[in-house]
Amino acid sequence: MFKKLCVIGVGLIGGSIARAARKANPTIQIIGFGRAEDGVNLALAKASGVLDDYTLDIASAVVAADAVVIATPVGAYCSVLQALKPHWSQQVYYTDAGSTKGSVVEACLAVFGYVPENFIPAHPIAGAEASGVAAARADLFEQKCVILTPMSNAEAGALLNVQQFWEALGATVTVMSTEQHDAILAATSHLPHILAFALVNLLGRKDEQDEIFKYAAGGFKDFTRIASSDPTMWLDICMANKQQLIPLLDQLKTELNNIQQFLVSGDNQQLFETFQYAKNARQRFLNQFENL
Amino acid sequence: MFKKLCVIGVGLIGGSIARAARKANPTIQIIGFGRAEDGVNLALAKASGVLDDYTLDIASAVVAADAVVIATPVGAYCSVLQALKPHWSQQVYYTDAGSTKGSVVEACLAVFGYVPENFIPAHPIAGAEASGVAAARADLFEQKCVILTPMSNAEAGALLNVQQFWEALGATVTVMSTEQHDAILAATSHLPHILAFALVNLLGRKDEQDEIFKYAAGGFKDFTRIASSDPTMWLDICMANKQQLIPLLDQLKTELNNIQQFLVSGDNQQLFETFQYAKNARQRFLNQFENL
Repeated sequence: MFKKLCVIGVGLIGGSIARAARKANPTIQIIGFGRAEDGVNLALAKASGVLDDYTLDIASAVVAADAVVIATPVGAYCSVLQALKPHWSQQVYYTDAGSTKGSVVEACLAVFGYVPENFIPAHPIAGAEASGVAAARADLFEQKCVILTPMSNAEAGALLNVQQFWEALGATVTVMSTEQHDAILAATSHLPHILAFALVNLLGRKDEQDEIFKYAAGGFKDFTRIASSDPTMWLDICMANKQQLIPLLDQLKTELNNIQQFLVSGDNQQLFETFQYAKNARQRFLNQFENL
Repeated sequence: MFKKLCVIGVGLIGGSIARAARKANPTIQIIGFGRAEDGVNLALAKASGVLDDYTLDIASAVVAADAVVIATPVGAYCSVLQALKPHWSQQVYYTDAGSTKGSVVEACLAVFGYVPENFIPAHPIAGAEASGVAAARADLFEQKCVILTPMSNAEAGALLNVQQFWEALGATVTVMSTEQHDAILAATSHLPHILAFALVNLLGRKDEQDEIFKYAAGGFKDFTRIASSDPTMWLDICMANKQQLIPLLDQLKTELNNIQQFLVSGDNQQLFETFQYAKNARQRFLNQFENL
């Protein structure tokens, strides 16, 4: 485990990384970095023991750190990497917690012209409904999956150390390509969010006219939970992964067209098979999820 | 409260109606009716105190009953009403628990040529993941909404008695037209189910190729919960309410087209507003739902 960790962006994820790292290594020193407008949040993080200290000056933030974790929204990576660039050190390991990885590569290319060998992009598949450092938990990554997407030029030592770091936070680490990560997450996370936003957008307008929400039940509550996610963060994620999302939306519309056609033609057998296949597929997911 | 109740179809809903009715009136007599293949289920319902008795003979089932509740899948209504027809009595109140109401009117028209004046169609907006009489609960309808859709020829006395019956089970009763009911439920319940089935259908095929479900998280679990619903029941419901669902599917595809277009053109502002509107609309729903 690292001795001195710099966390850039101390919200739910950055704060949880700090708490989990301190649990794994009680003598670790953790410095937070943020923008001027994050001052109150950073002070709270220090007061609650998440951070040993914080600074709004990037040069001070990274002094003597042996690892830097970027945990800001993915839309901020260019400016974060630009700020880090003059202080980039071959003696330090870099990782992040962004939900899209192609966009991280793009940000590196824009700032460095390549992805530095000691930067191992990561995505912890973990989150919570709450946001902000007050919701940070030392166990957020326990038994959760963390996907690493190292480039072909990545240093083996960096990959090993970053992998051991995430494992020390309690996670199970999987390594895959940037493209594979973005394709999988577009399907399992980004598309469902868009779908929930789209549905609630449509129904919200009907509710303004006819108060339909009065008659919605518990199933609707669960189905639409992710439509309560932070719009700024999800704007960021969807735009960052739009190359994957755009064709997926086409596939989903085809799926809806098929169902609509089964309804129009009264094709009971095909509609039943569609529903039955989905029920069985979800059971396959549940069996995996609950055995994690 | 009625003195002798006949429940036709003793599953989760029929069984819960029986349990709740007995809680409201401990001296009530409750007779269950089902098909030959429901024998084991009906025996279980009797053994567990849900029913006082059961029969596979409709004439015996309704003898001396002052109320009959139909709680079968909506696809079975024609045969149920056909069986009831020779025993239909002006001294009895009839209601049901079907999820679609236009289809109930159609079944009445097919069997009687009109909707009998003493039949008050009802839809309790309540359910549970489990199904079958073993999951029946006396409190299933407590603080839940029950929608009544009486026709214009309905007897005032029937409406009053059926309303009081559902209220005695703990529900809050709302009266609206058949069309309004079916439009609202198509939006808040049937469309979300189709969407969940469609998404999991699409992703299930990807999972067969690429094991994407390994990387799905808790948000996916909630979002897809309703895709684990009973395919036979949902085939029935969707076909019964297809006149409402088909145009709604068009509206949803338009919504998805808009979002896709915002992604293609990089229109951050419009995408943000879509997400923000949905988040606010869901909050409006939550505020109502949690104050129930």
